[in-house]
Amino acid sequence: MIVRLTLAYDGTRFRGWASNAGQRTVEGVLSASLGRMLGEVPKLSVAGRTDAGVHARGQVASFRAADAIDLDRLQRSINGMLAPEVVVVEASRAPEGFDARFSATAREYRYRIDAGRWPDPFSAEFVWHRPGELSLGRMREAARPLIGEHDFASFCRRPRSGGTTRRLERLSVSRRDRVEITARANAFLHQMVRALVGTLVRVGDGKLDPAEVVEILRARDRSRTPNMAPAHGLTLERVVYGRLPKTI
Amino acid sequence: MIVRLTLAYDGTRFRGWASNAGQRTVEGVLSASLGRMLGEVPKLSVAGRTDAGVHARGQVASFRAADAIDLDRLQRSINGMLAPEVVVVEASRAPEGFDARFSATAREYRYRIDAGRWPDPFSAEFVWHRPGELSLGRMREAARPLIGEHDFASFCRRPRSGGTTRRLERLSVSRRDRVEITARANAFLHQMVRALVGTLVRVGDGKLDPAEVVEILRARDRSRTPNMAPAHGLTLERVVYGRLPKTI
Repeated sequence: MIVRLTLAYDGTRFRGWASNAGQRTVEGVLSASLGRMLGEVPKLSVAGRTDAGVHARGQVASFRAADAIDLDRLQRSINGMLAPEVVVVEASRAPEGFDARFSATAREYRYRIDAGRWPDPFSAEFVWHRPGELSLGRMREAARPLIGEHDFASFCRRPRSGGTTRRLERLSVSRRDRVEITARANAFLHQMVRALVGTLVRVGDGKLDPAEVVEILRARDRSRTPNMAPAHGLTLERVVYGRLPKTI
Repeated sequence: MIVRLTLAYDGTRFRGWASNAGQRTVEGVLSASLGRMLGEVPKLSVAGRTDAGVHARGQVASFRAADAIDLDRLQRSINGMLAPEVVVVEASRAPEGFDARFSATAREYRYRIDAGRWPDPFSAEFVWHRPGELSLGRMREAARPLIGEHDFASFCRRPRSGGTTRRLERLSVSRRDRVEITARANAFLHQMVRALVGTLVRVGDGKLDPAEVVEILRARDRSRTPNMAPAHGLTLERVVYGRLPKTI
């Protein structure tokens, strides 16, 4: 059967999701724990290959396993080994053909910014502390023309293969205690959310004009984008399956 | 002049507030940083001597310093050394005679409990994960007769000296995503909040009757109280000065 895991993790002490020899990664510790429980290390598919320091609240991974396994026991066993740093929030049987990466129709990330003068000890690992005023109006103006299907070559590290066109479905800026930027797309390029956030923040603090963001997008040139926002403010919030047309 | 500091800290990696040879404590690192800045280590007075693992959002400390010191520079300098683990939220000049401990008329703590099945990676260090239902009605019933001036000998570690009577002004139980227990008193005895919370939780899960809590209070015997709640769910939220009558 196909097993689908919904995962939450604190990415602070991981070198990102993807297994990497000699590095502590989320995939690495999760695969090792699953291997100990199942007798063999499963091959994991994942919806969002989060970078070093990036967190997840609704990551989804899948793998093939024997029909006989007890999912409730699997969840308790993995959480016994890894929680609270990595938590299996849900373990369920997925329909045949389900693949956490290829079946996903959208990913949603949220980037949190604390603009207060001093950092907050209780959220410092999950929020970018960047003191100073930000104009939400300007940031929203800059975000609007980025929504839709575009070549985001300016907003990612150059991929080794494949195109750089993605469909950005949502890019919203809101403020509760913090400024929050939510980005949802069919898929994201490497470091794309952090490049988008870095750009919007430059608009918000007045150093870049909203209109210039469209020029950057059109340039399809990574050297045109301002510095990326740091990894630790970013969380993969959820992955969407099925409800949207599949266009990956 | 008297300097008053409002402090927030993540108590996870500290052996509590009070300086203790060979231990890493909040007072220890703060005094050392102040000493480096001022040329001599000040003698700190503090409103709440938080235990190992307990956090603070509105702790208050005070010390005497030369009139010439620049408080804004002091705050930036200390935060440069200690933030985000320990943050000076405010540094101000207090009236002559002010003492963070003896001038305080009330302390308010909040204890956070996550009753969900699995822990949350983003709050695990600040919230007690204790899965299972809790009856808020029963907990409130048990809390009500504890409010007021009582001998809390059943709810503290036996003090080396001094009495065990305190005036508990507030002991409320609420639930948002979590169960929150707020306790405010003129002063607290050692481990009193954690003993109160441990008792209310036993009432909430049905193992103790609300009426038995009054018997425990009357017994003035620490061996009668159930296990204390763990330290890491507890935060000193604020200290009150002046508005209430001083009765310490």
